[in-house]
Amino acid sequence: MTTPWERRYAQRTKGMGSSAIRELLKLTENPEVISFAGGLPAAELFPIDLFRAATDRVLTKYGRQALQYGTTEGYRPLREFIVDRMERYGIHATPDNVLITSGSQQALDLLGKLLINSGDLILTERPTYLGAIQAWRGYKAEFITVPVDDEGLRIDLLEEALCAGPKFMYILPNFQNPGGVTLSLERRRELIAIADRYGIPIVEDDPYGQLRFEGEHLPPLVVLDGEVMVNRNGQNNKGQGFGHGNVIYTSTFSKTLAPGLRLAWMVAPTDVVKHCVMAKQGMDLHTSTFIQMIAYEAIQDGELDKHVRLIREVYRQRRDVMLAALEKYFPPSVHWTRPQGGLFLWATLPEKMDAAELLQRAVAHHVAFVPGSAFYPNAKPDNWIGRNTMRLNFSNATPEKIELGIQRLGETLHQVMAQESVPA
Amino acid sequence: MTTPWERRYAQRTKGMGSSAIRELLKLTENPEVISFAGGLPAAELFPIDLFRAATDRVLTKYGRQALQYGTTEGYRPLREFIVDRMERYGIHATPDNVLITSGSQQALDLLGKLLINSGDLILTERPTYLGAIQAWRGYKAEFITVPVDDEGLRIDLLEEALCAGPKFMYILPNFQNPGGVTLSLERRRELIAIADRYGIPIVEDDPYGQLRFEGEHLPPLVVLDGEVMVNRNGQNNKGQGFGHGNVIYTSTFSKTLAPGLRLAWMVAPTDVVKHCVMAKQGMDLHTSTFIQMIAYEAIQDGELDKHVRLIREVYRQRRDVMLAALEKYFPPSVHWTRPQGGLFLWATLPEKMDAAELLQRAVAHHVAFVPGSAFYPNAKPDNWIGRNTMRLNFSNATPEKIELGIQRLGETLHQVMAQESVPA
Repeated sequence: MTTPWERRYAQRTKGMGSSAIRELLKLTENPEVISFAGGLPAAELFPIDLFRAATDRVLTKYGRQALQYGTTEGYRPLREFIVDRMERYGIHATPDNVLITSGSQQALDLLGKLLINSGDLILTERPTYLGAIQAWRGYKAEFITVPVDDEGLRIDLLEEALCAGPKFMYILPNFQNPGGVTLSLERRRELIAIADRYGIPIVEDDPYGQLRFEGEHLPPLVVLDGEVMVNRNGQNNKGQGFGHGNVIYTSTFSKTLAPGLRLAWMVAPTDVVKHCVMAKQGMDLHTSTFIQMIAYEAIQDGELDKHVRLIREVYRQRRDVMLAALEKYFPPSVHWTRPQGGLFLWATLPEKMDAAELLQRAVAHHVAFVPGSAFYPNAKPDNWIGRNTMRLNFSNATPEKIELGIQRLGETLHQVMAQESVPA
Repeated sequence: MTTPWERRYAQRTKGMGSSAIRELLKLTENPEVISFAGGLPAAELFPIDLFRAATDRVLTKYGRQALQYGTTEGYRPLREFIVDRMERYGIHATPDNVLITSGSQQALDLLGKLLINSGDLILTERPTYLGAIQAWRGYKAEFITVPVDDEGLRIDLLEEALCAGPKFMYILPNFQNPGGVTLSLERRRELIAIADRYGIPIVEDDPYGQLRFEGEHLPPLVVLDGEVMVNRNGQNNKGQGFGHGNVIYTSTFSKTLAPGLRLAWMVAPTDVVKHCVMAKQGMDLHTSTFIQMIAYEAIQDGELDKHVRLIREVYRQRRDVMLAALEKYFPPSVHWTRPQGGLFLWATLPEKMDAAELLQRAVAHHVAFVPGSAFYPNAKPDNWIGRNTMRLNFSNATPEKIELGIQRLGETLHQVMAQESVPA
């Protein structure tokens, strides 16, 4: 049964999602299934009373403004709050460098709209964030990828990839989704130097940077880029914001506050912001004024810091429980990352084991994860790219469920390996 | 001063807005200026207490769900509410035909992403909604236009335009933005018959349909299209929703409830919805769960109907005050539409008068409007298309300010005409 619309599609949604896996993951709605599949924060930690009080204040003090159309750039006090917060991480921006977006996903979509022509090549980590792949496929981008290891992007393989001429690089430096790995300081410096030498700019996506459980916070790429600029220009760029920067930085309230708000931001040179504002105007006019004002009211008086400390502590415990359970229940031939923060870790099965097939068995055994091939831009049904990998989320389930779920998954793995005569 | 990003732009924001006019309209932030420029609802009518109570209920009963990630399709109870409401207007949909969007603007952007390839031709009314032009320029669409008169789209000129082969038609049948005119029933039937004959589908944008002050509600195009289908197929399509429909319908809560929510919807055949869901996933994952649940709670128990009745009454009064003031203060050589609903009316100055120049004088005299050329897709700085027209909003200012503002605008007009020796 066709509709008059069917033959008119611009094919921009082509290959945007593997429907087989999506169907399988729908089965995780069964409450019996312990799911490590989603990227969901722990809902029991949401600061509900904080939001109730904030909403009340917003409606009492600024009801008419909150419910009216707003500016595309975003609510100015919220942009000022973000500037202050960014300063803490060494990022010297002004409110004119900040654009509020409807989730980080919209920032990625905006950058796609602004920068990508059909057939343009984007360089990403391998694996990389699925949402970026989806957003930029919509603009018919192609992808060239560089693998990550425990210290993040393999810088030694970067220059060869850059020779293909990507339009920009997309990097998640902290507790990367899906790998859980962090780009080391040394590699950050090398990356910036190479980006500068080749003239290839960087989109730095940092949703998890504030969720570090241990170790030292590492400077964002955008800060290191600023230092290079100081050397390059022989003058201090401090206070000039993002006038000539090679890096666009994005972050979000989804992981530190609540994803149901759909509230994130981009920090970029003013000319990029100006173009993004024009594009966003055509996309959704602006992000909900009401939501922006509620979030702003909620995070006053140190409430955001307080909440982030709580999340860090809970997620750290959950990561520890998951790592211990993996040691206990997983076959020794499976390897995994040990993230210092964030929401995810990444497991690699023996070669030629197919995580998508494993998922089918696992769901029958009431446990779920995301097969890793979804995070490889160039994975296809007829190649083997990323097939033996999986992403495990540790932020959403309770410690008890994490222990039980990993036990079930370990049992499934042992079973499959025995049947297929894979050495455990 | 250039940045590394500058030479990388995909040129999708090109020609998205006339910055001169935007700069001029910034002057209307001066509280002395009476502005008929925006499309703003009356903020003093926003049901603030309703939202406070609704938020409280949502956070108490469903806090965790409201603040968590949600489905891309939208909050199911809200989609069911919309299905019920659409039924009232004769639109037989199921929740699978409904997609919640972040404002109608996002629905337009989604349809652009789904349907428009670079260079595709879109047929619009002349003048038409500025936001649609902006959204679709982002996909490098071209436009062919058909003029409207007091009964809406000039159907007698439609077939000639269709021969150019547009991908779809974009129609605002009720109290059109910016013209304020309504497509007559006879022309609606003709439009549907022609669309069917030529096989050119229609995007029906209906933000104002519920804000009718007088006269009979006319059936939406999507309903008339359904009737044609019944005849065509020799069977009753009722209950089958949008299986084979030629029309995609969009509407919004921005005008009936509050624009600061950024909450709207699309009703479309399920395969279109399915593709739009994939595209929306790449654009913003989903619309804020929190906002969707607040809106749903707020409009229960007939509250939406009650509120719409209030708005209708207030806007009707304001329209009457504006029409009376126009008669009183405007030169007889200026003509204007007499909308039966909505937020806008449209004035046409004598030929060769430039509304953009008039705006400069008007702002100095503390009154503002939007020059009409912005609403003509093919208006350019070097042609005269739409130059002698203007859009006047009557929903936002109080009756006293409307009277005073139109008096000021009339004085400005008389002054300019005297100076330029245009017959008043």
